[in-house]
Amino acid sequence: MPAPQSSAAAEFQAMNRAGRLLLPNAWDAASARIFEAAGFPAIGTTSAGIAYANGLRDGQQIAPDAMIREIAAIVAAVRCPVTADIEAGYGESADRVAETVNAVVQAGAVGINLEDSRGSADTPLFDVADQQRRIAAARAAGDRHGVRLVINARTDPFMLSLGADLDERVAMTIERGRAYLDAGADLVFVPPLIDPVIVRRLADAIGGPISLMALPGAPPADELFAAGAARVSLGHTAMLAMLGALRDLAASVRETGTWTAIERTFYGNREAYDLFAPR
Amino acid sequence: MPAPQSSAAAEFQAMNRAGRLLLPNAWDAASARIFEAAGFPAIGTTSAGIAYANGLRDGQQIAPDAMIREIAAIVAAVRCPVTADIEAGYGESADRVAETVNAVVQAGAVGINLEDSRGSADTPLFDVADQQRRIAAARAAGDRHGVRLVINARTDPFMLSLGADLDERVAMTIERGRAYLDAGADLVFVPPLIDPVIVRRLADAIGGPISLMALPGAPPADELFAAGAARVSLGHTAMLAMLGALRDLAASVRETGTWTAIERTFYGNREAYDLFAPR
Repeated sequence: MPAPQSSAAAEFQAMNRAGRLLLPNAWDAASARIFEAAGFPAIGTTSAGIAYANGLRDGQQIAPDAMIREIAAIVAAVRCPVTADIEAGYGESADRVAETVNAVVQAGAVGINLEDSRGSADTPLFDVADQQRRIAAARAAGDRHGVRLVINARTDPFMLSLGADLDERVAMTIERGRAYLDAGADLVFVPPLIDPVIVRRLADAIGGPISLMALPGAPPADELFAAGAARVSLGHTAMLAMLGALRDLAASVRETGTWTAIERTFYGNREAYDLFAPR
Repeated sequence: MPAPQSSAAAEFQAMNRAGRLLLPNAWDAASARIFEAAGFPAIGTTSAGIAYANGLRDGQQIAPDAMIREIAAIVAAVRCPVTADIEAGYGESADRVAETVNAVVQAGAVGINLEDSRGSADTPLFDVADQQRRIAAARAAGDRHGVRLVINARTDPFMLSLGADLDERVAMTIERGRAYLDAGADLVFVPPLIDPVIVRRLADAIGGPISLMALPGAPPADELFAAGAARVSLGHTAMLAMLGALRDLAASVRETGTWTAIERTFYGNREAYDLFAPR
């Protein structure tokens, strides 16, 4: 990153404050370069996509060290700001979250996604106060490096279909959203919510920036922004679209012994040589 | 790999001897699983694709240790035999080639591509006798593990457009192909040759199995097999097709703020969960 990391963090903070931020998520250095070349001003990482590229399922199956290496490779591949998806922080305690964030900042990231899912069926979410401590620890870990991280605090009542009904789910999300902003988060991330009516309810009640994830069948970005979303990211959907494209290519090559599926979207050797110019 | 590595090597050897072997080349664990799920009986790695996924140009820009790690990840991802593209062996001497092959066999591969390009403009190819020693060293390194590697000996007069004219280029390829088979190679790999007439000349004159790489615009696999090719691999072309597909997806998302490019080939979350089942 040519600019000092603190400047990149400020630049990324300004993009999030300006709103209407459409953010693609990379799973390796190649996808990061492609997104940068397409003109996106910033890039996120996708933990699910990185897990898949490593042959693993999503959900903290990958070793934290391996995830940090992949984040560092993506940061090193591009000049624009990179925000890192660190799932639930690879540990329960605020201290463990701080260790993870310390490594992620050293890897060059200027933002994080941190979720409140505990991965436990009995108590699916961290206590609100615990998650506030975890967010505050992440903030402090960045500050120790002089990097004011953009903290995208994910809350998972919608992801895990919690609450007796929609109203309860909305109320949980509002309570947690407010609490996470109070603890120092910059945005409240509510995947896989895509209903503009509920987005509007949340945005009004939380009183801070809402962040969403694109999904097949979701309304266009403009509608999500109009409903109150400040940021819409692609999450792992671009990676899954590439897996589907490769599945189709593989079936075509195997069944026909022809290269039409390869020719259709071939990038070009010269173009790849240029795309991967050393930096 | 459930079968002992020596059995996998024998299985892969039989596929190469049977001929008409269409081989896809993976650049990460995800692409390897997709190719395996498509029913390909064996998988190669692509050094160019692995370099690209790591944000690097092709041509031994990647550290040998990193390349070995990527090969190991691909082997670990699938049950079918995997052959590794090790470029020029990551060293000039036969001893260095043996070290590389030793690591590649420990990573679980049962075959290698080894090329005779030196990466030097003055003397673009290794001396024939040197390359014979390098091939013999690779063979011995596998044998020390009890693994009879399938050695796909690449010769680059066509790749580097060597010789004063086509006849000289063909003559060089025949001389080297025969010499490499004498030194213990199993196939002679002649990318980017795709002209069936020249393939036939080479196959008749070399008197051993010829191996080719698919390219956009190449004749179908059946024509290349009919001309005398025993194996046709995709090389880095599938990876480049994915880079092009992602470039198109990124442009569509950025320009329209809609998800139609993602929806078109979306793989599915449930399908990804199944594809990346632990093994």
